Amino acid sequence: MLRTKVFNLMARNGPSRLMSTATKLTTVEVNDKTGIATLTMCRPPVNGLNLELLKDLSTSIAEIESNKSRGLILTSSNATIFSAGLDILEMYQPEKERIRAFWTQLQEVWLALYGSSVPTAAAINGHSPAGGCLLATSCEYRVMLPKFTIGLNETQLGIVAPKWFMASFLSVLPQRQAERALNQGRMFTTEEALQIGLIDETANSKEEAVEKCAAFIGTFAKVNPLARALTKQQFRSADLQQLENERQDDLEKFLFFVNQPAVQKGLGIYLEGLKKKSKK
Amino acid sequence: MLRTKVFNLMARNGPSRLMSTATKLTTVEVNDKTGIATLTMCRPPVNGLNLELLKDLSTSIAEIESNKSRGLILTSSNATIFSAGLDILEMYQPEKERIRAFWTQLQEVWLALYGSSVPTAAAINGHSPAGGCLLATSCEYRVMLPKFTIGLNETQLGIVAPKWFMASFLSVLPQRQAERALNQGRMFTTEEALQIGLIDETANSKEEAVEKCAAFIGTFAKVNPLARALTKQQFRSADLQQLENERQDDLEKFLFFVNQPAVQKGLGIYLEGLKKKSKK
Amino acid sequence: MLRTKVFNLMARNGPSRLMSTATKLTTVEVNDKTGIATLTMCRPPVNGLNLELLKDLSTSIAEIESNKSRGLILTSSNATIFSAGLDILEMYQPEKERIRAFWTQLQEVWLALYGSSVPTAAAINGHSPAGGCLLATSCEYRVMLPKFTIGLNETQLGIVAPKWFMASFLSVLPQRQAERALNQGRMFTTEEALQIGLIDETANSKEEAVEKCAAFIGTFAKVNPLARALTKQQFRSADLQQLENERQDDLEKFLFFVNQPAVQKGLGIYLEGLKKKSKK
Repeated sequence: MLRTKVFNLMARNGPSRLMSTATKLTTVEVNDKTGIATLTMCRPPVNGLNLELLKDLSTSIAEIESNKSRGLILTSSNATIFSAGLDILEMYQPEKERIRAFWTQLQEVWLALYGSSVPTAAAINGHSPAGGCLLATSCEYRVMLPKFTIGLNETQLGIVAPKWFMASFLSVLPQRQAERALNQGRMFTTEEALQIGLIDETANSKEEAVEKCAAFIGTFAKVNPLARALTKQQFRSADLQQLENERQDDLEKFLFFVNQPAVQKGLGIYLEGLKKKSKK
Repeated sequence: MLRTKVFNLMARNGPSRLMSTATKLTTVEVNDKTGIATLTMCRPPVNGLNLELLKDLSTSIAEIESNKSRGLILTSSNATIFSAGLDILEMYQPEKERIRAFWTQLQEVWLALYGSSVPTAAAINGHSPAGGCLLATSCEYRVMLPKFTIGLNETQLGIVAPKWFMASFLSVLPQRQAERALNQGRMFTTEEALQIGLIDETANSKEEAVEKCAAFIGTFAKVNPLARALTKQQFRSADLQQLENERQDDLEKFLFFVNQPAVQKGLGIYLEGLKKKSKK
Repeated sequence: MLRTKVFNLMARNGPSRLMSTATKLTTVEVNDKTGIATLTMCRPPVNGLNLELLKDLSTSIAEIESNKSRGLILTSSNATIFSAGLDILEMYQPEKERIRAFWTQLQEVWLALYGSSVPTAAAINGHSPAGGCLLATSCEYRVMLPKFTIGLNETQLGIVAPKWFMASFLSVLPQRQAERALNQGRMFTTEEALQIGLIDETANSKEEAVEKCAAFIGTFAKVNPLARALTKQQFRSADLQQLENERQDDLEKFLFFVNQPAVQKGLGIYLEGLKKKSKK
């Protein structure tokens, strides 16, 4: 029933981008009636956040900002996974320049999404670990389908969620729950996430989740958009500024950590496990 | 049953203040038995916070501080409105010197109330939007009558609640709820406010609300007043210091914003609407 | 059933420490099966935190850190008191050098416990006022036996809990509840503490409390210890750094306050009351 227009972001960006049309990893649809943009991640098989998906996310978020959309709903084209988080292949035996670009792009996406001037909501239609949870908690509202899991499980993988992952999580949960969950690397079921406040509502289908996100964004209908954006900024500027001030340090810290032999070994074992699993 | 004495604040302040006795906009009554002062706003028709009411609030708060009262209960003489917030007339086509004095006085009231060394409580006996909610959330405890509303609805009016409004609100609500409510400019009913923790108790009459506030203040009966004041200060000093450090900037920011043609136009339309409403 | 080894901390510290073996005020038992260390305070009659108990706490915490224990459970050998808090005798008519050493040692214990790299939990098997509550809230998890009380009741005694007591408390409770409780010097019953979130669980015996603490620590079984420690540090480093930066100031502030004639008089009256009570 929704009449939508799909931005062909590639087409707008000239020939060089056109070449990569085949790898377009996000779509943006704007509902003509509500003016709300739905941003869908579609990188098979699990929406792993690699450099290209992150670039497309940045481009799509910028597009939505500049198009004066009434809001942004983030969701996934995958039936069971919202996003599996950072693509391990970007971190395992990385090429020097590419891993720098990768992490810098991830910072970029967070700054754009957490600091977005438009209302943001996540329709979490599948599992949402690590980087997937980061994206969801950077939005202002979360609606999740049943029987999935969400959480920052970095410590389970032997890695440390940086301060800005923590900031998004702390904008949603009280300190006691936030610290404990991150220390444990805990994954919450949909029900547990609702009870603790990590998500705001549940929905039985992706369509219903998107509708509930749209209803949340609709609560801003009578609100002055500039006053709203400045108010949101006041709540989030300290977190955003902290990363802006430490971007280079944050990158070097990540590179140092990921290049530790023990971490590389762990990632290798993890990838080996994934390969065996996928062969079965 | 309560024996009370009414401070004639005007009389104490010498001839110059005596001239304005007719416009006295607050009263302070001290309960001889409990030593608790009730500070009542009484500026018809809606306790709009104009320069004069803010000055009288400052004087009354200072009086209560210096009189070693056991506590301060803030309430309204109006049967349906606690305070309607900032008086729009102070902001519409403002006179240059007066609007500076107005905003500076509002800062003064907040610094004095949020930073008060005595226990503070609000008996919210009517609607409490915007500046009214600021006063209520600057107190340590809130008791509210049913069927009224409370909230920082600035974005609904196209304006931005400054950081220190946010600080008072965040001292009461968790970040997720606080940010969402301010972004939405949400007004909470008494019941919603109780459920979310924006108020602490409800009461069926102003008398009962004042009694419940007094009971809260009574919990400090066996507490050393100096140790209490220093403890409260430790929790609030960062917020207070931030405004102290930025007072001039905060004033200029407000003046810049309020003098925008779009804002002036909006205020004009709003006032026109109020006039028509009152003629009916 | 638990096979445990008791560290003889004294013996390891050479002759000078051996002389004080008789006054050993803490024990550390490591469960060989789980690798979890139980640190027991045992200074009759009430685990008052004096210089010697604080020193033994520091030594024991350092021992547990360096022994790569899987976790630390803090408890008391007393059947009705976890810890009565700071020993008043350290503060009444104090000897100049000793009181400096005393407060410095308290800072040391907090920095070590709140900043511990291993998972920490408190099995609160008795009353836990003031300094007792500080120790409990510096752990990551709290299990408490029924019919006891816990809280930072400093204002009831006319003193002010310093900022770092506040930091531990704020890591557990939201600001509104934390500020109010500290202003009131409120002691919570076990049930009230559970409801507000000041403790996480209740248990019917010390053994059960220790088991529940061990179960909490067991949630980290599959988590990388280094990633966990770094994650915890990110949540707590601002609080820890603040005391590190202000240690000297914090000491001078405490000395100035405790040496006030009014405070000394108050402590004297309090001690007189305790003596009379114990003679009955």
